[in-house]
Amino acid sequence: MQPLPLEIPADADKAIVWSNDRLYLLDQRVLPMQELYLEMQTAAATADAIRDMVVRGAPAIGVTAAFGVVLAARESYQAHGAGWREGIKSGMDCLAASRPTAVNLFWSLERMQGLISELDASDPEPTLLQEAHRIHQEDVASCRRLGDLGAELIESTTSVITHCNAGALATGGYGTALGVIRSAWAAGKIERVYADETRPWLQGSRLTAWELHKDQIPVTLLTDGAAASRLRVGGIDWVIVGSDRIAANGDVANKIGTYSLAVAAKHHGVKVMVAAPTSTIDMSAVSGEAIPIESRNPDEVLNCGGKRIGATGVDAWNPVFDVTPAVLVDAIVTEKGVVHSPNTKKITELMSS
Amino acid sequence: MQPLPLEIPADADKAIVWSNDRLYLLDQRVLPMQELYLEMQTAAATADAIRDMVVRGAPAIGVTAAFGVVLAARESYQAHGAGWREGIKSGMDCLAASRPTAVNLFWSLERMQGLISELDASDPEPTLLQEAHRIHQEDVASCRRLGDLGAELIESTTSVITHCNAGALATGGYGTALGVIRSAWAAGKIERVYADETRPWLQGSRLTAWELHKDQIPVTLLTDGAAASRLRVGGIDWVIVGSDRIAANGDVANKIGTYSLAVAAKHHGVKVMVAAPTSTIDMSAVSGEAIPIESRNPDEVLNCGGKRIGATGVDAWNPVFDVTPAVLVDAIVTEKGVVHSPNTKKITELMSS
Repeated sequence: MQPLPLEIPADADKAIVWSNDRLYLLDQRVLPMQELYLEMQTAAATADAIRDMVVRGAPAIGVTAAFGVVLAARESYQAHGAGWREGIKSGMDCLAASRPTAVNLFWSLERMQGLISELDASDPEPTLLQEAHRIHQEDVASCRRLGDLGAELIESTTSVITHCNAGALATGGYGTALGVIRSAWAAGKIERVYADETRPWLQGSRLTAWELHKDQIPVTLLTDGAAASRLRVGGIDWVIVGSDRIAANGDVANKIGTYSLAVAAKHHGVKVMVAAPTSTIDMSAVSGEAIPIESRNPDEVLNCGGKRIGATGVDAWNPVFDVTPAVLVDAIVTEKGVVHSPNTKKITELMSS
Repeated sequence: MQPLPLEIPADADKAIVWSNDRLYLLDQRVLPMQELYLEMQTAAATADAIRDMVVRGAPAIGVTAAFGVVLAARESYQAHGAGWREGIKSGMDCLAASRPTAVNLFWSLERMQGLISELDASDPEPTLLQEAHRIHQEDVASCRRLGDLGAELIESTTSVITHCNAGALATGGYGTALGVIRSAWAAGKIERVYADETRPWLQGSRLTAWELHKDQIPVTLLTDGAAASRLRVGGIDWVIVGSDRIAANGDVANKIGTYSLAVAAKHHGVKVMVAAPTSTIDMSAVSGEAIPIESRNPDEVLNCGGKRIGATGVDAWNPVFDVTPAVLVDAIVTEKGVVHSPNTKKITELMSS
């Protein structure tokens, strides 16, 4: 994983770039202070980049993993020629082990695996690359479609609150929650976006604010603890968030703090919209309890801005996702349509439509 | 305001030290990494220290202000002799203008003013110093008393969540919310304290964790956004917080994020205890709407750990207190007694008891 200058300007819609047969990722760990692309040379390096959060956001992880499989295929074909199938598995296992919660990762690997099983002994790279590009393009198209569908749910001009970053940076491009906000902004329905800073990793401050400010959409940051107070002030009709995995019953796993925000929204009669492509829906998870919740290093909480702030000897609880039960969700918006007051029946119907 | 070595070890119970006719404050901005005492030489320097949060927490601000008045009296007596009344007002005005929300500041200044109006032209320092010491000692005694009363409300051993720092550091000593926790811990009723890190100033990480860890009370940090998820996990019977000002109807102003936590507690059937001395109750404020809420520099949100993290050109909303309506509060615990399900009638009775 080495930084290489890339002759394109950094942009949220170019978080994942395949150029001249090389995979580049915009390093989201150093945004907004540095706009740096890192070249991924192997599937293992790509897995490391996902685990270390060079790239994050469920749909973006899915797209990245697809290109990671292309790198795994290249490595294996160079090493084994016609016997490339032997070597590709380790690269794919590496990718699968990178992060547990975002289901799009597994969805993408399964889709690539399905294609792999149909291929002959010749160089698999061109076909797999075509599929990775297709996954990427489909993700952007899904975001645009669900963005428009979500925007239609907003009845009159309002401010909204979002949590974490479910933007172009978190997807192939355009974004899920921020896709809805972009479409609604274009339709004149957004007054201002309040962005939770989203501790511990500060995706709101670093990514969402950067992305929206670049698009000249009015954005104001606030601490996660201030969101309920902002809801109480009024003028906010919707909380709009993305998701890392949606269970069959409509329970929503998303960045830690989403549940707190949804509870506060319910308390204030503010509606909650979850925007995600259907690749985020995991029909094998009956409810949120079946979703694996990643815990990360307590140092992410004990440190702030790269500096230790927690007292020595003190521990921290750091689950990085939480589950918002379906009962707190007013609408799940996908590229296939909107599910109001989600439950298993409605989501099953959506997925089989 | 200059740092001086002080031959006593830094301790939460020694946040405010009067020694050898000098006022020292433990610099809470640099805890837990540095344990540094700053000497206050004038009332104006003391006011600066309050505004800059060298010392914070409503009762501690009240105690500090009382000693600040002693310094104002000294300055004025040195300059004007028998005409010391001329000069003392500017020092007191300075102190009054330092921070708007904590009512203990005004309560303390009024009490000192009441005494000043009874004094003759001779050196006022000895009498005012005696009164400042009395305010300090009364605050500690109040904390111990309300700590015991609050602990009695806890029926069986439980974990608790607290927000910000309402500990010895925030008071003359012992603490309000942490006073309750200390008393309950001594009575074997506390399993573990979950401390919200409390953005933007991170009083939970820096102060509460430091204080409890020193006392060997088990403490785990979590992000403010994770508190609702932790409540959902279970095993927590009480949220216990302090207050900066309580209105006559029982509405509670406290550190931003308290309201969010109280809403989440209500959603989970977890009880909310507010621990504060009666000097925190402002009978002139009919409800929370009458409490002035301080907004501080947006940079406190845009920066984290001293490092800019918010994207350039982006603004932040930074009210540093919020109001939790009385309906979300199960008990207000003071040194004069406990008010369950607070309302104006019950609080009026308490204050006139």
